[in-house]
Amino acid sequence: MRARNLAVVLQAVHRDGPLTRAGLAELTGLTKTTVSSLVGALLEAGAVSESGAVRDGERGRPGVAVALSGHRVAALGLEVNIDYLAACVVDLTRSVRLRRTRPADNRGSDPAEVLQRLRDLVKEVTAEAEGAGLRIIGAALAVPGTVEGDLLRNAPHLGWRDVRVADLLDLPCAVDNEANLAALGELWFGSGAADFLYVSGEIGVGAGLVVDGTVFRGTYGLAGELGHVVVTPDGPACRCGGRGCLEVYAGQDALLGELDSVATLVTALAEGDRRALDACGRAGDALGVALTSAVHLLDPGRIVLGGIFAPLFPWLESSVRGALAARLRQMRGTPPALAVSANGADAAVLGAAGLIIQRIVADPADVLGL
Amino acid sequence: MRARNLAVVLQAVHRDGPLTRAGLAELTGLTKTTVSSLVGALLEAGAVSESGAVRDGERGRPGVAVALSGHRVAALGLEVNIDYLAACVVDLTRSVRLRRTRPADNRGSDPAEVLQRLRDLVKEVTAEAEGAGLRIIGAALAVPGTVEGDLLRNAPHLGWRDVRVADLLDLPCAVDNEANLAALGELWFGSGAADFLYVSGEIGVGAGLVVDGTVFRGTYGLAGELGHVVVTPDGPACRCGGRGCLEVYAGQDALLGELDSVATLVTALAEGDRRALDACGRAGDALGVALTSAVHLLDPGRIVLGGIFAPLFPWLESSVRGALAARLRQMRGTPPALAVSANGADAAVLGAAGLIIQRIVADPADVLGL
Repeated sequence: MRARNLAVVLQAVHRDGPLTRAGLAELTGLTKTTVSSLVGALLEAGAVSESGAVRDGERGRPGVAVALSGHRVAALGLEVNIDYLAACVVDLTRSVRLRRTRPADNRGSDPAEVLQRLRDLVKEVTAEAEGAGLRIIGAALAVPGTVEGDLLRNAPHLGWRDVRVADLLDLPCAVDNEANLAALGELWFGSGAADFLYVSGEIGVGAGLVVDGTVFRGTYGLAGELGHVVVTPDGPACRCGGRGCLEVYAGQDALLGELDSVATLVTALAEGDRRALDACGRAGDALGVALTSAVHLLDPGRIVLGGIFAPLFPWLESSVRGALAARLRQMRGTPPALAVSANGADAAVLGAAGLIIQRIVADPADVLGL
Repeated sequence: MRARNLAVVLQAVHRDGPLTRAGLAELTGLTKTTVSSLVGALLEAGAVSESGAVRDGERGRPGVAVALSGHRVAALGLEVNIDYLAACVVDLTRSVRLRRTRPADNRGSDPAEVLQRLRDLVKEVTAEAEGAGLRIIGAALAVPGTVEGDLLRNAPHLGWRDVRVADLLDLPCAVDNEANLAALGELWFGSGAADFLYVSGEIGVGAGLVVDGTVFRGTYGLAGELGHVVVTPDGPACRCGGRGCLEVYAGQDALLGELDSVATLVTALAEGDRRALDACGRAGDALGVALTSAVHLLDPGRIVLGGIFAPLFPWLESSVRGALAARLRQMRGTPPALAVSANGADAAVLGAAGLIIQRIVADPADVLGL
């Protein structure tokens, strides 16, 4: 009961704070004595702090307000991707306190070696966070592959199969697919929309569907593999064993061709380079077809393009919009709105940290040990 | 509180009955007096009945057992499809008491005329059910198109757009897409599995995803439109305005060609007719491709083929299995199991009636007016 009430109070502060103790009692239906005791525990744990006086309703006296604290409790977001490792620290108010990215070539790599490097990064980031007075309560890791429970089942570009990544990481750590976590990053650190399909354009292409603020995961947690939706049944072979998947047209490798980075590609596109424009045209057409299938099956509220699709959007937009309009108009009136994520390459690592923050707010007694 | 407790008692009887009043009290944590009063109300409403004596736990005396009653409360399932109207009556124990199908040609039809004929069918079926002592508590209608709330948005084969079908039907009636209701039919009247993608093969092709016993509907209730998943981006034009959708390869019209019925097609296939075999081969290949995309996006527990795909399964099976195995093996180990529904053409109308039964069990006080 106390655990439940701690959650009720912290959630009220999270949603409607700053609030006085009297305001919290009114909002939650708990007695003032109970609220005071719960607020005391949350203050002690560093989850809330007391801020300046606020007026307490129309007729009340000014009181001391309780707000979420950004000064002590924090979460660690981690990411192993194909060409980088990343970490970030987010405090309880969802302010991003630290971000670190390490370029790497993790294709066909040894999980133990990559995760050793990630452990080094964790040490460094944790020390820096602690230096700023933050206490890291938990961690979550984004990986570019399918995850069932704690098991990374298959990350084709890394060449990893059936790896228990958390065991190799030496700290308690949730693990999820990078597109799912990037979708949560969009939910918590993006536009504020609660219904969308987040499309993650990286070396692999994935997607995370958010319906009413919740990620749709399917039966085994494997939903949203947009990159392997079939665009052309007899198209080029894909790493997944299929043919003509979206990824062979719109993954980073297909888009870059001989170029060495997305920045170079953007320059080439801006200069009207024919090969770059053709690659983007093919990617946009394929994305339009795959998203048509995805809209018919998943019924997203809107579509948010993230990862490398964000900087490339000016060159993808017309083909994607054209395909969606032509193919969906009759069944759905207007096709879902199409937008670009503002989170950039940080989406997944932010979502990973946000997941831990969400767990703290959902059950502070358990996560903070109150 | 009484409404809540009526639901608790009816659900316990539904799940674990027959049960004595003492057994119900033990199971629900309610007092025996409360249970007796609630059972009294449910008996009065005809939702439960008293059956023979059962032993009441190890040491108890034999008591009178309370079970769901199949004798009074019933639900009406209705369906408007492209080539038939259907109705069924299901009692509270989910026994099917009546089924009626009327062949019709509803392509490009007038909603008011078709629904007038459905009203005649409702009258006939209701009278027959009442003659058997049943009281129809509610109705649900399956339609071959997209439904948002109570609005049939678009049924391309009927040629209906933005029709409030329940208003034309002259009785309170829930409305849903036929594939969603057929999926519920599979859940409640099928194999008992709780995680599957039901694929509805009719003149239109649709699908309903059930995850942990619940239909996934997407953001606006439009999810599961498998028939318009793109198989070949530049394929033949589809009624939906797109090109190369699954439906142009695997819908009933494409499968039948010049033939006049599925029965004729099955005969032709059994006789080795080349055109029939080719049509089935194309349909099976397209179904394999579209289901690959669907598995990647939706992550179903298994795939259940219904409607006309059930009798055609012997001629579809190898291409569908082949495509799923080749394209999914690497990402998912084994592809989802593939099975055939036993519900036949009745799946949607059964699911419609089942939906009302589910509502009665979920909230008997409200639905039965207790």
